[in-house]
Amino acid sequence: MKRDVDRLMEERGIDVAVIEGEVKGNATMFYMINGAKLSHATVIKKRGEEPVLLCGTMEREEAEESGLRVIDTSKYDFMKILKDAGGDRLKASVEYYRIIFDELGVSGNVAFYGKGDTGANLVRLNALDEGLSNVTVMGEYSDNVFITARATKEPYEIERIREVGRLTCEVVQHVIDFWKSHRLEGDTLMKADGTPLTIGDCKTEIRIALAKRTLVEEVDTIFAIGRDAGIPHSRGNDTDTIMTGKTIVFDIFPQEQGAGYFFDMTRTFVLGEASSEILDAYAQLSEIHESVLAALKMGERAGKYQGMVCDFFEGHGHETPKTNPQVRNGYVHSLGHGVGLNIHENPRLSNAPGMADVLEPGHVFTVEPGIYYPDKGWGMRIEDVVYVHEDGTMENLTKFPKDLVVKL
Amino acid sequence: MKRDVDRLMEERGIDVAVIEGEVKGNATMFYMINGAKLSHATVIKKRGEEPVLLCGTMEREEAEESGLRVIDTSKYDFMKILKDAGGDRLKASVEYYRIIFDELGVSGNVAFYGKGDTGANLVRLNALDEGLSNVTVMGEYSDNVFITARATKEPYEIERIREVGRLTCEVVQHVIDFWKSHRLEGDTLMKADGTPLTIGDCKTEIRIALAKRTLVEEVDTIFAIGRDAGIPHSRGNDTDTIMTGKTIVFDIFPQEQGAGYFFDMTRTFVLGEASSEILDAYAQLSEIHESVLAALKMGERAGKYQGMVCDFFEGHGHETPKTNPQVRNGYVHSLGHGVGLNIHENPRLSNAPGMADVLEPGHVFTVEPGIYYPDKGWGMRIEDVVYVHEDGTMENLTKFPKDLVVKL
Repeated sequence: MKRDVDRLMEERGIDVAVIEGEVKGNATMFYMINGAKLSHATVIKKRGEEPVLLCGTMEREEAEESGLRVIDTSKYDFMKILKDAGGDRLKASVEYYRIIFDELGVSGNVAFYGKGDTGANLVRLNALDEGLSNVTVMGEYSDNVFITARATKEPYEIERIREVGRLTCEVVQHVIDFWKSHRLEGDTLMKADGTPLTIGDCKTEIRIALAKRTLVEEVDTIFAIGRDAGIPHSRGNDTDTIMTGKTIVFDIFPQEQGAGYFFDMTRTFVLGEASSEILDAYAQLSEIHESVLAALKMGERAGKYQGMVCDFFEGHGHETPKTNPQVRNGYVHSLGHGVGLNIHENPRLSNAPGMADVLEPGHVFTVEPGIYYPDKGWGMRIEDVVYVHEDGTMENLTKFPKDLVVKL
Repeated sequence: MKRDVDRLMEERGIDVAVIEGEVKGNATMFYMINGAKLSHATVIKKRGEEPVLLCGTMEREEAEESGLRVIDTSKYDFMKILKDAGGDRLKASVEYYRIIFDELGVSGNVAFYGKGDTGANLVRLNALDEGLSNVTVMGEYSDNVFITARATKEPYEIERIREVGRLTCEVVQHVIDFWKSHRLEGDTLMKADGTPLTIGDCKTEIRIALAKRTLVEEVDTIFAIGRDAGIPHSRGNDTDTIMTGKTIVFDIFPQEQGAGYFFDMTRTFVLGEASSEILDAYAQLSEIHESVLAALKMGERAGKYQGMVCDFFEGHGHETPKTNPQVRNGYVHSLGHGVGLNIHENPRLSNAPGMADVLEPGHVFTVEPGIYYPDKGWGMRIEDVVYVHEDGTMENLTKFPKDLVVKL
């Protein structure tokens, strides 16, 4: 939570945090400017003080919506600084921060955050470190102050995630209804124009349904059928037709329009009838999914549940990452991840070395076991989002049935 | 163009280019992997050799679509590296690249590109520079090799931009038709349910129209009315109602779904009737826009046209950045920018110090003068995209009328 930021900065010896870059795709920036609708900005937060928002003159009004103290950077006249630097943009960028840091009294260990051009930032931040004698430029490699703070959500964040979740469930139901509105010809769903319904058609329908609800796909929804469903990150092939008897993995993770909170859920469907092989596997998958949901406990190491799932699957004859890190058939990924302003954040339900996340109040995370056999032409995954209440109650935010078979 | 990359690397003393990060929002990555639908990847390009694409095992099939040599990184077993590093992710990341660089024969000046977490990349790349004795880690601050190469488009890129442009024009026309389908009550457009049509309604309609065409808003479309139209980057207020007599600045810059090419166009509309003040200003704006389009010439400095526009507007009594860098009333920005895999790229039609771009064959850029008087309650901008053919012919890719007034 935001109130943890000062404590974390102190623990890590950080005097000042500077968050830079575009707002879009930059969760920490969005977090610190309270979702103000800027295109890009800089936030400077001295430890123990309120953050200051610097932005261009054209976005001054949007900046005010942050509730932060706003500085219109036009007063620093970057064009003059650039001219004085003989058009050398790197030199000018150092000079620009020198002026701002002097004005705001920034010195000591200054850590940079945000997102941006990798090479340009490397050059610029090293030049800044060298150019400003009273500043030590720092970064944090993983689980930085803001990633850590963002992992535990406040009630206003839960309400937003809950609402995205409600709308996401509506979209999944809409897709089921959309399938049912089509006519079956042999084993293929057909459109009114006599051509087969494709994954591309379904994806367009999903995007329209999202747009109507002011949601957006940050990256392509996973909507994969048959063999592709057996490859967890396959987005699905737009020209594939929607057929009965095959598993469809529908993993949808929309974000609030214009940057904001995500939701993340997966259902697996088979239209018409499922084979006994698929039904048996789905029964196993449902069993372990429910077992994990029932076992989740505040204070437990998140990776423990990955171990539980691996043990279950190995006991049922499926390979898992526990015994084969390169596993491609069986259970092939980790169990879950936090969801918030990033689609993947802390906590990690993973047993990778060094992963020591413990389930805490405010955590919002997915539980998503899957079974994958691409060479057999199928794959399946069930994914819900769980919220840990203050008292340790686990609330499943994904209020949607898990029926595999869709009768047409 | 891609064929320029080796020459540019040589000129800048770069032996190897490493492009990292998510594909989404990472134009150089998209460019180098030929639009393959990966979520994230690493590309290693030794000067004079074909690039190699490294990706996770779950995205191996998408990676093949790049046409590049693909290495499935599961073979490096990062989890074992991480374990050997005692769970220290930074140490493991250095070791990981050591193994890959050894295998691929990477040494010398290795420049990093792409997009990512600012602080984490700073720490990691400095550690890499220190940890690998045969590698000097570099970055480029501005106009890097790939930004420079990407500024001149190849025919296949033009066709994609042209198609996004055609679809974008369809969406603008759709919005005009959408307005006309509403009933006027006094000076306000009304919905069938008896409530006023709002900017939020129009934006939802735009997003649906884009989704139907497999396009997406990367950031919010600018759709601002009245006073907000006078602030160039104002996205517009969702609850504002659509009224007659006010300028509506409609600046739409969609991208191909899932990352890809952008288009960028602006039209200004007044529903019903426009005041003589607005009509007069629009006549000036149209005149200078047409004059610039007619004057554009291959080989000329792009910034020259910004000067031409400033001189014209100052001659008509409007302030401009030429005499007041902090101008907020009058003409308040630069004239244009390249458009491609980023919404803003080279060339820059700007007179900022150090800006020396010259119009070249393959350039695709906007021409977008505007006049802004927020305190008078209006603003206006016209924006077309121009493509410079091999023989210097300037083609306007924005095939859409520029009528200000929309009769209801």
